Amino acid sequence: MNKIIGITMGDPSGIGPEVILKSFLNKKIKLGKYLVIGDYEVIAFYNKKLNLNVKLENISNYEEINNSTETLSVLNLGLVEIKNLKIGEVNLSSGNAAFQYLKKAIELAMDGKISGIVTAPLNKEAINKAGHHYSGHTEILAHYTSTKDYAMLLYDEKLSTIHVSTHVSLKEAIERTKKERIETVIELADKTFKKLGFKNPRIAVAGLNPHSGENGLFGMEEIDEIIPAIKSSRSKKINVEGPIPPDTVFLKATKGNYDVVVSMYHDQGHVPLKLLGFHSGVNITVGLPIVRTSVDHGTAFEIAGKNVANEESMVNAINLAHQLSNDLVH
Amino acid sequence: MNKIIGITMGDPSGIGPEVILKSFLNKKIKLGKYLVIGDYEVIAFYNKKLNLNVKLENISNYEEINNSTETLSVLNLGLVEIKNLKIGEVNLSSGNAAFQYLKKAIELAMDGKISGIVTAPLNKEAINKAGHHYSGHTEILAHYTSTKDYAMLLYDEKLSTIHVSTHVSLKEAIERTKKERIETVIELADKTFKKLGFKNPRIAVAGLNPHSGENGLFGMEEIDEIIPAIKSSRSKKINVEGPIPPDTVFLKATKGNYDVVVSMYHDQGHVPLKLLGFHSGVNITVGLPIVRTSVDHGTAFEIAGKNVANEESMVNAINLAHQLSNDLVH
Repeated sequence: MNKIIGITMGDPSGIGPEVILKSFLNKKIKLGKYLVIGDYEVIAFYNKKLNLNVKLENISNYEEINNSTETLSVLNLGLVEIKNLKIGEVNLSSGNAAFQYLKKAIELAMDGKISGIVTAPLNKEAINKAGHHYSGHTEILAHYTSTKDYAMLLYDEKLSTIHVSTHVSLKEAIERTKKERIETVIELADKTFKKLGFKNPRIAVAGLNPHSGENGLFGMEEIDEIIPAIKSSRSKKINVEGPIPPDTVFLKATKGNYDVVVSMYHDQGHVPLKLLGFHSGVNITVGLPIVRTSVDHGTAFEIAGKNVANEESMVNAINLAHQLSNDLVH
Repeated sequence: MNKIIGITMGDPSGIGPEVILKSFLNKKIKLGKYLVIGDYEVIAFYNKKLNLNVKLENISNYEEINNSTETLSVLNLGLVEIKNLKIGEVNLSSGNAAFQYLKKAIELAMDGKISGIVTAPLNKEAINKAGHHYSGHTEILAHYTSTKDYAMLLYDEKLSTIHVSTHVSLKEAIERTKKERIETVIELADKTFKKLGFKNPRIAVAGLNPHSGENGLFGMEEIDEIIPAIKSSRSKKINVEGPIPPDTVFLKATKGNYDVVVSMYHDQGHVPLKLLGFHSGVNITVGLPIVRTSVDHGTAFEIAGKNVANEESMVNAINLAHQLSNDLVH
């Protein structure tokens, strides 16, 4: 058996099933065996409704999976009935299902049965309605794999950035700007980009303060934490530069000077990435014991079931999961 | 006499004189009377060296100024001799001159002799070498006009942003995220855009924290300071919305949803503006008792004297000074 990439179906009421089906038909997708972890009835419903004609295989146990790359296999958890499916709405039933698909996918990945997980979007409000109190995929993945040192990498061919912190207040983000954490994130960036085929990844580290603090005039974090982290990483032969003033580092990276920017906080990385308005971005959780990539969009309830969702981010997420799991082939 | 717009010559060793001369020849510049506050010998030198053939008038007292819009008048402070001019280098003599041009321009503006000041770039290191300890134009302007409530507005037709704070550490920027200051900045944005011809300026206020804090989950500044400031501004009939998550507000503004974004700190506004890489941006200091606009680039020593500097930002800075001083015509 070739390696199998698992794809969670995401919230059944959102655009997850649609972008998965469209990705399978997209010529850019790598040839491989894909297993959707979701509800067969739901994905078959969208397949018919949107006239996509993907060849689906319904299996209830992982072991039943066929070997054909022409079939999209669906591990059917049987959680949502079509008659109860609410398209385009936050609801408990879909929220619970999305959570269970992910939990099952993590089990399969931890057991080595799938080589990586690609996640379709879930809705935070919906999973919380269903009693699963997490702020999103990443926290669920960290919890069920008992991982402490992970980071969010937003990957796009034109600009990629990895975050020292994400979903915390800006005040707490400053407190988390610590040498040890920055070193960890630099190392995660280096490892991940090497897996993605970059021989000697060029890593830029952004400053925290305006103009990177101007030698301590506008803040000491560069001197106390960021520069020591960079020095220490360089001594480990990592090709890293910085701190580079936040308001120039992203422009330099888009011009091709760097492969990835280490951002000190959520918005430092998210503002430039989202401004460029890519449809093609992929969210990678690095540092987990399993491979996990994700689309970088949400459930987009307002367009669910309308056959207008763009699958580019999903195609790239699937292809990157392939690349990242290359050293994990069974 | 029509109104006169004053233009400081900036650091004589940088690209200031060149972009001023080129702007005067640019067809997009508004018809008007311009007075360069600088050194006649220096600007005449660049005029000849770069073959620009601008008609210059050398005056040593403001009162001597002619009325012709075909002549670029130069108030000659006689501070730098050509034989001592170091092109493309940080040096004390040029630093001192740049500082004195600005000081003189402020005097003329405060006396109502010029309707506004457009500033060419100075070099912070050079002015400090000359013993003038300021971090830049804005601080000098605030000091000599005794102004407390001012703000930096980066203006471009495609995206404009005004800052609640600028050259302070990120930690201090959080501390400055206060209702009263935010209200002041919203009001300054409203007034300025009205002067620029927007009838009912559409103002967006960015959040401070990721996702604007998610109802207090990632920080309280939105609830405690930003939302009250917005409510209070709305009660004054200002057309303001927010807080809008930092990672979506700039994209929305570039799509035309808003005329200006209120940024909570330096890099929140500078990262997106610089990433878009405009050559046309203008830096406006709002809240001063005088009109002041500026190019948004530096002295660019590496290209000084080479006839490759782009004057677009200077042309726009001059034209905006015209617009902003419309209610100040003598």
